Amino acid sequence: MSYITYNAAKPLDFTAIGRLCIDLNANEINRPMEETMTFTKYVGGSPANIAIGMSRLGMKTSFIGKVANDQMGRFITTYLENNQIATSGVVTDDSGAVTGLAFTEIKSPSECSILMYRDNVADLKLKPQEVREELIANSKMLLISGTALAQSPSREAVFLAIDYARKHGVVIAFDLDYRPYTWSSPEETAIYYNLAAEKCDIIMGTREEFDNMETFEPNPERDDHVTAAKWFNYSAQIVIIKHGKDGSIAYTKDGASHRAKSFPAKVIKTFGAGDSYAAGFLYGSMQGWSIEKSMEFGSAAACIVISSHSCSDAMPSAEQVQDYIDRCNRGEIIV
Amino acid sequence: MSYITYNAAKPLDFTAIGRLCIDLNANEINRPMEETMTFTKYVGGSPANIAIGMSRLGMKTSFIGKVANDQMGRFITTYLENNQIATSGVVTDDSGAVTGLAFTEIKSPSECSILMYRDNVADLKLKPQEVREELIANSKMLLISGTALAQSPSREAVFLAIDYARKHGVVIAFDLDYRPYTWSSPEETAIYYNLAAEKCDIIMGTREEFDNMETFEPNPERDDHVTAAKWFNYSAQIVIIKHGKDGSIAYTKDGASHRAKSFPAKVIKTFGAGDSYAAGFLYGSMQGWSIEKSMEFGSAAACIVISSHSCSDAMPSAEQVQDYIDRCNRGEIIV
Amino acid sequence: MSYITYNAAKPLDFTAIGRLCIDLNANEINRPMEETMTFTKYVGGSPANIAIGMSRLGMKTSFIGKVANDQMGRFITTYLENNQIATSGVVTDDSGAVTGLAFTEIKSPSECSILMYRDNVADLKLKPQEVREELIANSKMLLISGTALAQSPSREAVFLAIDYARKHGVVIAFDLDYRPYTWSSPEETAIYYNLAAEKCDIIMGTREEFDNMETFEPNPERDDHVTAAKWFNYSAQIVIIKHGKDGSIAYTKDGASHRAKSFPAKVIKTFGAGDSYAAGFLYGSMQGWSIEKSMEFGSAAACIVISSHSCSDAMPSAEQVQDYIDRCNRGEIIV
Amino acid sequence: MSYITYNAAKPLDFTAIGRLCIDLNANEINRPMEETMTFTKYVGGSPANIAIGMSRLGMKTSFIGKVANDQMGRFITTYLENNQIATSGVVTDDSGAVTGLAFTEIKSPSECSILMYRDNVADLKLKPQEVREELIANSKMLLISGTALAQSPSREAVFLAIDYARKHGVVIAFDLDYRPYTWSSPEETAIYYNLAAEKCDIIMGTREEFDNMETFEPNPERDDHVTAAKWFNYSAQIVIIKHGKDGSIAYTKDGASHRAKSFPAKVIKTFGAGDSYAAGFLYGSMQGWSIEKSMEFGSAAACIVISSHSCSDAMPSAEQVQDYIDRCNRGEIIV
Repeated sequence: MSYITYNAAKPLDFTAIGRLCIDLNANEINRPMEETMTFTKYVGGSPANIAIGMSRLGMKTSFIGKVANDQMGRFITTYLENNQIATSGVVTDDSGAVTGLAFTEIKSPSECSILMYRDNVADLKLKPQEVREELIANSKMLLISGTALAQSPSREAVFLAIDYARKHGVVIAFDLDYRPYTWSSPEETAIYYNLAAEKCDIIMGTREEFDNMETFEPNPERDDHVTAAKWFNYSAQIVIIKHGKDGSIAYTKDGASHRAKSFPAKVIKTFGAGDSYAAGFLYGSMQGWSIEKSMEFGSAAACIVISSHSCSDAMPSAEQVQDYIDRCNRGEIIV
Repeated sequence: MSYITYNAAKPLDFTAIGRLCIDLNANEINRPMEETMTFTKYVGGSPANIAIGMSRLGMKTSFIGKVANDQMGRFITTYLENNQIATSGVVTDDSGAVTGLAFTEIKSPSECSILMYRDNVADLKLKPQEVREELIANSKMLLISGTALAQSPSREAVFLAIDYARKHGVVIAFDLDYRPYTWSSPEETAIYYNLAAEKCDIIMGTREEFDNMETFEPNPERDDHVTAAKWFNYSAQIVIIKHGKDGSIAYTKDGASHRAKSFPAKVIKTFGAGDSYAAGFLYGSMQGWSIEKSMEFGSAAACIVISSHSCSDAMPSAEQVQDYIDRCNRGEIIV
Repeated sequence: MSYITYNAAKPLDFTAIGRLCIDLNANEINRPMEETMTFTKYVGGSPANIAIGMSRLGMKTSFIGKVANDQMGRFITTYLENNQIATSGVVTDDSGAVTGLAFTEIKSPSECSILMYRDNVADLKLKPQEVREELIANSKMLLISGTALAQSPSREAVFLAIDYARKHGVVIAFDLDYRPYTWSSPEETAIYYNLAAEKCDIIMGTREEFDNMETFEPNPERDDHVTAAKWFNYSAQIVIIKHGKDGSIAYTKDGASHRAKSFPAKVIKTFGAGDSYAAGFLYGSMQGWSIEKSMEFGSAAACIVISSHSCSDAMPSAEQVQDYIDRCNRGEIIV
Repeated sequence: MSYITYNAAKPLDFTAIGRLCIDLNANEINRPMEETMTFTKYVGGSPANIAIGMSRLGMKTSFIGKVANDQMGRFITTYLENNQIATSGVVTDDSGAVTGLAFTEIKSPSECSILMYRDNVADLKLKPQEVREELIANSKMLLISGTALAQSPSREAVFLAIDYARKHGVVIAFDLDYRPYTWSSPEETAIYYNLAAEKCDIIMGTREEFDNMETFEPNPERDDHVTAAKWFNYSAQIVIIKHGKDGSIAYTKDGASHRAKSFPAKVIKTFGAGDSYAAGFLYGSMQGWSIEKSMEFGSAAACIVISSHSCSDAMPSAEQVQDYIDRCNRGEIIV
């Protein structure tokens, strides 16, 4: 049972809105960034990564966002186009904004951190009047990402995109992706995350992200069932709560909960795990697969990405994901 | 038929949230402000005026807001208390904010303008964590005012207040009260007004205010019925659209529209007409009166205020309003 | 000995640059402002008051500043013109700035305070390219006021005005007038006050103001002689240090110090004392009077202003000041 | 004739104040940055480069500045220390500021550009109270850089450093280094550049930078002699005006002008030419060399840097510079 029905008449499978930025990944890894001398440039940002993942998986994909009027912005747009992602919804900033940056530090496979540049970034300057209604109307699914809610006018652009999606019968997936540094306060975050989540069909986040959303509500036990039940009273059909090493649980409106088995991986870094998981899971959902099969597919996609140096550029094709699952099932991947 | 049911078990009748400021009304009127030499100080701000109006009409009233830590702020709190309005929800700013000011200019009864001081004002610094849930839980009605949505963190405080009201079965009235100078753009205004209005039971505003809310929606004829129908698909029971000199129309969820007769008045200025009308109408609604009778009561209350020098201080008692209606009906008030 | 030589060939006697604002003086005095109900509007701001004082004393005066594009701004410009002050150097803001306000509170003759509105004020938006060089070139004296150094671009405008004055042989008087609320930090204040004071011929301020200027310099005893000596190493000829109730001392480059006798006054409030003193003293200096006689004239002018309700509007003519001195000398003014 | 006398009793030769940032230099060059995939990290910022240059040339050097509390900041401090530059004057930001970045693009040896990240950068947050007076007091020379004047509080810190230098008989060199993106307006720049330059002994900049400083002064012919003469009326002994491909001219207070011969170089990029020239020239001045010999030494140092991939890391030792001059003189370097 897939729980979600997609409108097959829509020509586009998937549109994401939000952050487009640059990852600068340390080439010399397993050391502090102070000792890293060179960096490789990739397209980054959670919704960008998920869109690239969906396109690699064969979905007809488009993006709604804003890039800086500089070399970094042009690199991003070109990269999306080279990955068969429609960029008619990607506008160029004219206010002197810069491209957001994320320098990654990989001290060890389990000790990863990010140094962010998020002041005056172009992606947060997307205006509601720059959101093209017909792109959303023509999509089976809209993905929104929490970081795009952090500041005006991007925040308003996302709320308008949500309204367009509901007006046109587009399934809305919400990847919470909470990054504190761009928000004024946790209370502000809670307010807008809740306003957005009320209108979404699929909500995906970590337990800590859901905790923050419950700042003004009693859930002292941090109980997943209380959390999920709230959203089923609004629009949600599926709520995925991630518990780090303890795995993810998908809650569905029928009261069921779902877990998927996990796969071994030769981990280089943990970045990108969530984005590739989201792409794999949403892809499965759009194929009409069961929750479990979709989660399994997402897990395998994540294994591939965390075994690689980049996030976006390592997003696998459906064949690669299936092959990884098959090899795991045959016991060929041992860590 | 009154359309709205109030929970009689709640001890408070009415709580308003939002702007508290100072009106400085020209003493020498019928001239440009350049030639005005002295001003009289009154409490002002649309929700403050409505709360004072409700209290004068006999409703048990409280206020949720923020005042500056100065003489103006203390004057406001004292004035509310002297008018039997509970101020346990009024907090004092500690960031150096000032009290918003409105200097009024009365060139003639029909040529009135306001010179606003709205930079760094205390009322827009109300934080969500400063909104006392039990005050709302204990109220039959919550009034929100659009100006409080103009900036963070006041905007978030209002969204939280709305959530508290819905959680506790409190009727929500939304007075649009759009003041462009505190907003970044009309598009931003439209987004947040819509997010708030979706959750309100009674929505009151001018045709122009509703037009702005429809920035991203087709209503080319500016048709009241299209406007009202949208909100009946959400939570609204009553939508009042004001057409200036052509009078106000109340639309109700049953498809009916309602007009009330108007009264003559010896107009000094037009300020305060909307606030006193709102107080009179909401009072009538809480008495279980018909829409028409409530509108008539609001109109008479407005006549009293626009015949006076102040807004807040001129808010009438129920006896005064009834007396005004009676005198009009006897033909004793001739303009 | 007058210590300063003025260029008699210059057609204007006196040009001031800086703050133009509105005083709203409590009509009901000897009580806290919370209990004040009405206010009277006057032109205010230290350099405005001094310019009005100089014009009343018969000096040909002009002003360089910026006013808001509103009723308050137009009132200010008209008032200056009505007081024979040339306003060709007064430009109008086009950025939506407001007029600075000062609400006065007079609890008792010795307990006076001010509630300031200084956010987004027009006077601090004067740009250097708006300073008309020929106005300064044609003046015998330029008065700068410390508050105009508090923020950009007004700060830059003042530095440019100083350069114009030095280029054209114009005497520069610096009224320190330190108002902490518009400054980022006392350290910032110290830096710019020093940069300006280095180029001034006459420096007037309180002991506390000079203390703040010495933030980064050793003067542990707060010794007036150390303070004055520093400035004589730069451009100063006269340094007046005010010690509150202990009176003012004028230090001169020849090493002398000067005190003047004081006069009795029926004090209503202390506001305006410094500005009227400055006008009286500078007037005396321009007449070629001795330091002592100039200080005495300033003291008498101050007595007249502090016995009145307003600052600007109470500035006396030379005849009124002389008459006050004469009456004091005849023992006719007894407090 | 060297024109400048340095106080041999001071233990430190050279202290620079101002920008510390990171250069990210394209590894794949001679193409647009869009096509660059990897970047190498270097310490950058004009005064940092000059300080590194001076230290490599054997001068006892220290730095006064502020770094971010992150990996980039720690890298900078460590790099300075590894280059024998005292960092007791380098403080760490605690406000969440980031390290300024400069991505370099080398399309061809003559087509170079920089993509800057200058929002919320640590170097501009240096406060005056963080400037250690004794570091300056103990230095023979203080170098200030124009970019540090762009914003508060760094601007105030530089003005205080200048005052400390004058108080303690330290020679001040001013490298104009005008970068428009951090300034509010060219007029603002002109005001502060002039205020600083009045107090400096050596002023170095391009003709365009001096033009901007003359925004409010008549020099319609953009005449170097007019420009230099102005500064000789203040404190300057040497004014170097750079005319791009036409070479640099040093003007001295005695009315003389000086040119040096130039050297051939196999240019990779033009970045760093000015900084290495400055280091070479100032080094020569401190050796008591003639202006011409100092300029020649600066030119040769610049040739070495522009033939290399980095700026800071390519700064040569005195032996390397002399060797380059010798090889040029022997005709061994042919481009």
